[in-house]
Amino acid sequence: MRTTRAPKTSERVARELVNHIVENDLVEGTKLPNEKQLVEVFDVGRTTLREALRLLETRGVITIRPGPGGGPVVRRPRPDDLRESLTLILQFTGASLTDVFEARATLEPMIARLAADRLTDEQLDELQASVVEMRDRSDEHEVFLAENARFHSIIAEATGSSVLWVFNETLKSIADGAVVGVEYTPRRRVAVAAAHEKIVEALRSRDPLAAEVAMRDHVGEAGDFWKRKYPELSSRDMRWVH
Amino acid sequence: MRTTRAPKTSERVARELVNHIVENDLVEGTKLPNEKQLVEVFDVGRTTLREALRLLETRGVITIRPGPGGGPVVRRPRPDDLRESLTLILQFTGASLTDVFEARATLEPMIARLAADRLTDEQLDELQASVVEMRDRSDEHEVFLAENARFHSIIAEATGSSVLWVFNETLKSIADGAVVGVEYTPRRRVAVAAAHEKIVEALRSRDPLAAEVAMRDHVGEAGDFWKRKYPELSSRDMRWVH
Repeated sequence: MRTTRAPKTSERVARELVNHIVENDLVEGTKLPNEKQLVEVFDVGRTTLREALRLLETRGVITIRPGPGGGPVVRRPRPDDLRESLTLILQFTGASLTDVFEARATLEPMIARLAADRLTDEQLDELQASVVEMRDRSDEHEVFLAENARFHSIIAEATGSSVLWVFNETLKSIADGAVVGVEYTPRRRVAVAAAHEKIVEALRSRDPLAAEVAMRDHVGEAGDFWKRKYPELSSRDMRWVH
Repeated sequence: MRTTRAPKTSERVARELVNHIVENDLVEGTKLPNEKQLVEVFDVGRTTLREALRLLETRGVITIRPGPGGGPVVRRPRPDDLRESLTLILQFTGASLTDVFEARATLEPMIARLAADRLTDEQLDELQASVVEMRDRSDEHEVFLAENARFHSIIAEATGSSVLWVFNETLKSIADGAVVGVEYTPRRRVAVAAAHEKIVEALRSRDPLAAEVAMRDHVGEAGDFWKRKYPELSSRDMRWVH
């Protein structure tokens, strides 16, 4: 096992609370028993319980609502929780946004390839709807960003691989133009919609290689566009923003 | 920008400390100024400073040594810091170790492909040395685990991509047999050394496609071996262990 040290009581309590949430499939926002009740359930001291709750809070499993009537509430950890850890490591290794683009250019074609065999008809319809929405509403910046994010998420989800989905979402949340303050022109948005359309065609024909190639072309072209349009932004060292 | 809320003072202090560590390339173990000195440098209250230090501690940037003569010490965040976040998300999505294997089988061939063009002669020598060590000392379990980890790290490092290196290390730390309590037989260890040898040959000939194929064969075969030998372990839902 990972370590020979005995786990602290607070860690055991934290783990049991995680198991409780997962096994009962408690949705985000579900109120957990309050501190006093949890102290009794786990038969531990108040300090130990608070340590456990704080640990779960830093891990994104719960949030703690302050005030009377407050207390621990289910949050559930999400891919975006990796963004901060990854960005920090990237800052420490002197990596830039270009590094993130390259990783996407490596990862996303493989994701598209896997998805071609596994995509459901419903997911295919969703992708097609996303392309239509993006093309027809190319003058709306917010719609573009949302559809762009949705498109890439559906394909990653279609792989059925939680790991690949998490990695994909993490990179997206770092490279997202909205985060770093990039504006997409309407012309650019139409070009992205056309690239998405090609990917959908390849996926519809259930052709893994064609899907891989279409995605590689799209992500590679997008990376080149950014490097050309925003050279300082792309090459600037990553910085952790909490 | 990500959020419109003004960053808390403690977050600003945390960020400045990160920048200080990175810009001065402070190595792990370097003592930072003590709490009293930091309060003066940043001109903030003791509570705010402690909040900043706690934030940096949970992000793996520093450790705080207790007692007199203690205080904040540089740690530097590392890929393994993503292991916990990822494992938690995998538990919440009901993923298994098989999911981690599949992600490795997707990611590592692409890493090998990229590395073939970028690997230095020194890295090639290191890989060859690792293969020799693994083969010649196949009766030593610890040596096998260390060389196995080293081999895959060198190739990921050779891509020059911090992101791919981090992802690779994270998956390795989850799938590592030692962590989940798997024993490798000497015969199995020799088979792994032979597979590594084939990968080195492909990399030496600077053939991206051959490197990709050799790595795909190796990681795929390893995944199949695990699923066959440890079916319960591979299909069991992931569990967060702090």
